[in-house]
Amino acid sequence: MYQSFEVTARPEQGPPRLKALRAELAAQGLDGFLVPRADVHQGEYVSPRDERLVWLTGFTGSAGFCAVLHDVAGVFIDGRYRTQIKTQVADVYTPVPWPETGLADWLIEQMPAGGVIGFDPWLHTAGQIEQLTEALTGTGITLKPTDNMVDAIWDDQPAPAMAPAKVHPLEFAGESHEAKRARLGTELSRAGQTAAIITLPDSLCWLLNIRGADIHCNPVAQGLAILHADARVDLFMADAKLNEVRDHLGPDVTARDPDTFLNYLSGLTGPVRMEKTSVPAIVADTVGSNGTWGDDPCALPKACKNTAEIEGSASAHLRDGAAVVELLAWLDAQAPGTVTETQVVTKLEACRRSDNALQDISFDTISGTGPNGAINHYHVNEATDLTLKEGHLLVLDSGGQYLDGTTDITRTIPIGKPGADECAAFTRVLMGMIAVSRLRWPAGLAGRDIEAIGRAPLWYAHQDFDHGLGHGVGAYLSVHEGPQRLSRASHVPLKPGMILSNEPGYYREGAFGIRLENLLVVEPATAPEGGDAHRAMLSWRTLTFVPIDRRLILPEQMDTPSRDWLNAYHAEVLDKIGPRVSADTLEWLKNATASI
Amino acid sequence: MYQSFEVTARPEQGPPRLKALRAELAAQGLDGFLVPRADVHQGEYVSPRDERLVWLTGFTGSAGFCAVLHDVAGVFIDGRYRTQIKTQVADVYTPVPWPETGLADWLIEQMPAGGVIGFDPWLHTAGQIEQLTEALTGTGITLKPTDNMVDAIWDDQPAPAMAPAKVHPLEFAGESHEAKRARLGTELSRAGQTAAIITLPDSLCWLLNIRGADIHCNPVAQGLAILHADARVDLFMADAKLNEVRDHLGPDVTARDPDTFLNYLSGLTGPVRMEKTSVPAIVADTVGSNGTWGDDPCALPKACKNTAEIEGSASAHLRDGAAVVELLAWLDAQAPGTVTETQVVTKLEACRRSDNALQDISFDTISGTGPNGAINHYHVNEATDLTLKEGHLLVLDSGGQYLDGTTDITRTIPIGKPGADECAAFTRVLMGMIAVSRLRWPAGLAGRDIEAIGRAPLWYAHQDFDHGLGHGVGAYLSVHEGPQRLSRASHVPLKPGMILSNEPGYYREGAFGIRLENLLVVEPATAPEGGDAHRAMLSWRTLTFVPIDRRLILPEQMDTPSRDWLNAYHAEVLDKIGPRVSADTLEWLKNATASI
Repeated sequence: MYQSFEVTARPEQGPPRLKALRAELAAQGLDGFLVPRADVHQGEYVSPRDERLVWLTGFTGSAGFCAVLHDVAGVFIDGRYRTQIKTQVADVYTPVPWPETGLADWLIEQMPAGGVIGFDPWLHTAGQIEQLTEALTGTGITLKPTDNMVDAIWDDQPAPAMAPAKVHPLEFAGESHEAKRARLGTELSRAGQTAAIITLPDSLCWLLNIRGADIHCNPVAQGLAILHADARVDLFMADAKLNEVRDHLGPDVTARDPDTFLNYLSGLTGPVRMEKTSVPAIVADTVGSNGTWGDDPCALPKACKNTAEIEGSASAHLRDGAAVVELLAWLDAQAPGTVTETQVVTKLEACRRSDNALQDISFDTISGTGPNGAINHYHVNEATDLTLKEGHLLVLDSGGQYLDGTTDITRTIPIGKPGADECAAFTRVLMGMIAVSRLRWPAGLAGRDIEAIGRAPLWYAHQDFDHGLGHGVGAYLSVHEGPQRLSRASHVPLKPGMILSNEPGYYREGAFGIRLENLLVVEPATAPEGGDAHRAMLSWRTLTFVPIDRRLILPEQMDTPSRDWLNAYHAEVLDKIGPRVSADTLEWLKNATASI
Repeated sequence: MYQSFEVTARPEQGPPRLKALRAELAAQGLDGFLVPRADVHQGEYVSPRDERLVWLTGFTGSAGFCAVLHDVAGVFIDGRYRTQIKTQVADVYTPVPWPETGLADWLIEQMPAGGVIGFDPWLHTAGQIEQLTEALTGTGITLKPTDNMVDAIWDDQPAPAMAPAKVHPLEFAGESHEAKRARLGTELSRAGQTAAIITLPDSLCWLLNIRGADIHCNPVAQGLAILHADARVDLFMADAKLNEVRDHLGPDVTARDPDTFLNYLSGLTGPVRMEKTSVPAIVADTVGSNGTWGDDPCALPKACKNTAEIEGSASAHLRDGAAVVELLAWLDAQAPGTVTETQVVTKLEACRRSDNALQDISFDTISGTGPNGAINHYHVNEATDLTLKEGHLLVLDSGGQYLDGTTDITRTIPIGKPGADECAAFTRVLMGMIAVSRLRWPAGLAGRDIEAIGRAPLWYAHQDFDHGLGHGVGAYLSVHEGPQRLSRASHVPLKPGMILSNEPGYYREGAFGIRLENLLVVEPATAPEGGDAHRAMLSWRTLTFVPIDRRLILPEQMDTPSRDWLNAYHAEVLDKIGPRVSADTLEWLKNATASI
């Protein structure tokens, strides 16, 4: 099923549903109810059943929440969505600028003394509820875990996602689930812990070498699990999803009815490790004093890809690169003014799907031209779709899910002849991208210690961009994966095998956007002659091979090592991707990868 | 008095003094005693009276401490001093690698069960004692505050420093002490605090606009103070030091006998702000439950220099630059093999002293050639003094104290013809220095967010250096000043007016060292044409004007903006310093500042 451009936001759906929810609140004797965007698993995408925030309010942003009170309903949204929300929600909803206004402060201002606000303890993390409870202490306002009030009034709520789980072959996983369970179990033992609770679907799927199709763009099977220190796993997943993986899981992974999860938790002896920032509040409450806070034990091992995963990702990137190159060659042949943003998306998806290996796209393609390119998380739909016009730029950010890897690539393409400001800024963005790609750095540093290198070329011109430089990427898993990040906020040391995006950008509001993105994998660096052999350093191997548009580059603005890097990169693109594209596209590619 | 090169470390002094200390321990019924390097004020330099660690052990390093037990005496030293200590202390002392081995762990291993270790509660901070107490909890070893055991056996211990305090004129301070006390008092009031305790001499001197000469290279008057929320100050300083400042201090600064300090503290009502990392343990104990932890209220205001301080520093740097240029011209005229490290130091100090404005040098000059240049904190003395030889580099790191500012500058000079590795590494160090000097960055970032920019040119070659990129510098105060730093450890946002050093280096053990250092002041940046005017950004103004040795630069290794920066810098050096040097030196300077 191709990406949809249907306008799903219907402001008029909001008022009657809000009215119904308030009637339900009154029946339950509550003064309010919190409606988060998150599901049990705190993922970036949720299943249709869990689209409660959209269903209630019409707001489709990827972050935010609604606090419904009897006489006001606040929709908390961050800076990215200040404009979008105006067209999406009816005026019975009040947009609240967040995090500038905190939920607790807003509740204190809006709620009656002695007010009680309900929340679904499956949909909020233990950390969120702890923080909110602390902030409300002494205010007279109390939180009360309840059944989900939205579910209570949502008559045609979709059923839970029920796609069959599938075996993720060892050839791609690179390590058996027996071996993974054993080494993570040993780590729990060493930490003096009896078990760990796993609620993140990508952790669960990584650990057991299974995949699924419960979530749009994310090849995960949703479920909950308990990993024991003796390497056994209790898997709480709908029985109907397990037919294809039962043999694979074997005797040490016990499938259990999801409805028995809480009951089972009460029977555990501790200490049981839970991750405060992702475990549902009700889970932490049930484990109670047997619990201990700690990282999800799968997070770091999952982030550090093994050789099979790295080589798999490299292969996937070649197939994916060929598809993107076909799209770029096609696009170059279209006259300005003849193609729209959505047509580019569909054509790109068709290029990707022409390779039968594609399982899905890895996220909804961002295709923004002119002023739409300057919107960081632009999600094109029928209402916003623009035609690609002479002199505009197109920001095209997309990716594919393949059995052997997940891709994520951004290129910026000029439509016709680009302007001088566009070329100057593009060259700076490219310089930042290359400065990071060429980098080696002392082992032990985190994303925050090197992120400035990707921004400095823009800073020198008093420019910058308002998103992180890069995010972790999974191995046929989520395209946004923690804990590794190239961000000022990330203190997790970068380690060999981690795959990250390197995606500097520049955005001029109302005018144009620029972003370039390659995926890179961390690897140990060996000292060249004259280097300090005693220093343990790390460097990158680039995974993405697609040309960077030469029409936007000002070579005289670049230094020699950067130009050399670009020319070598383009030679490698031609070498690796050339044999995979059509004859016409090969001619285009030769030109696109010529030296500057 | 010129810098001394006398070898002060005499290993043979150690054994009899250790014996006497142990006898004192036995008499007091203690199992051990801690001898830190620090004095009451936790400064980098201490007065002769406070050189207890040197007196007892012979170890002269700038960090470290000794734990004396009955059958072992551990001298805890960091990586910089592993070699030096071998020649400085007798074998009755055991060097302990620190922080790899923590004090608590070592005490647990070495001390008898139920052992009691004494410490002077004036010389350890509240934070240090809290941490050590926690680490020893449950081990059976206890800490006991006592009189100082070293003082008890040190017959000819020098008297306390007693230099007269002097008024620091408003012309240089830029803000009256009345105004400083008022705004800091208001800040205490806003925080709901009644007072703050000030034990750092540079904070005290900054607040009251006084200076002194109690400490080598540091123009401070030692004392203790209490700043009240109503802007009054109680000043605990020896009466004999106050004659020249009494009128200046006026009625709202009450001089009190230092011996009454603790007694006075007990009478305070709280909350009284104290800085955990600098306040002596006995002070925190005396304030007790009336205390609250917080930063020294002077630290940040002192770091953000006002216009008078910035312009004063700029003026001081021109005088100081002229002195350094005279030295460089003189040095260039000396044949390789004819001058020693100490002769360079003395000649440089003579150049500085030829300007009557010099009050003192700002730290002991580091003058290291050949392998000595690779020792980060090299302190040349009679025993280590090397002759400057053909093909060697000289690292020369020095500074001056002037009434209008404090300077700190490092240059690396080739003796004869430098080697290829030296030139390649020097050019990288220079590239890092320039990359930082040219930088502008978003307001709100801290040193750790931009430090990588100064290292990246070395990183690309698998090289690095093992010290921070830069430190804060005072205004006719300490040459090392917090809280501002260009370091991976520094999360304090950089703010306009902060003066910092920018000093990348490269050190090849046993072979050569390279370091370059300019002082810079943070200032607001205005967006150039094409920049993002809505972004608040900061940049630097360079204060140091002394040529960077062109014989060590490989121009083809540099990019155009860096070369342009260097040529513009050198033009400014000639313009600003040229009129201040002798005719012969001017000819030398013209050549030294020619374009590359």
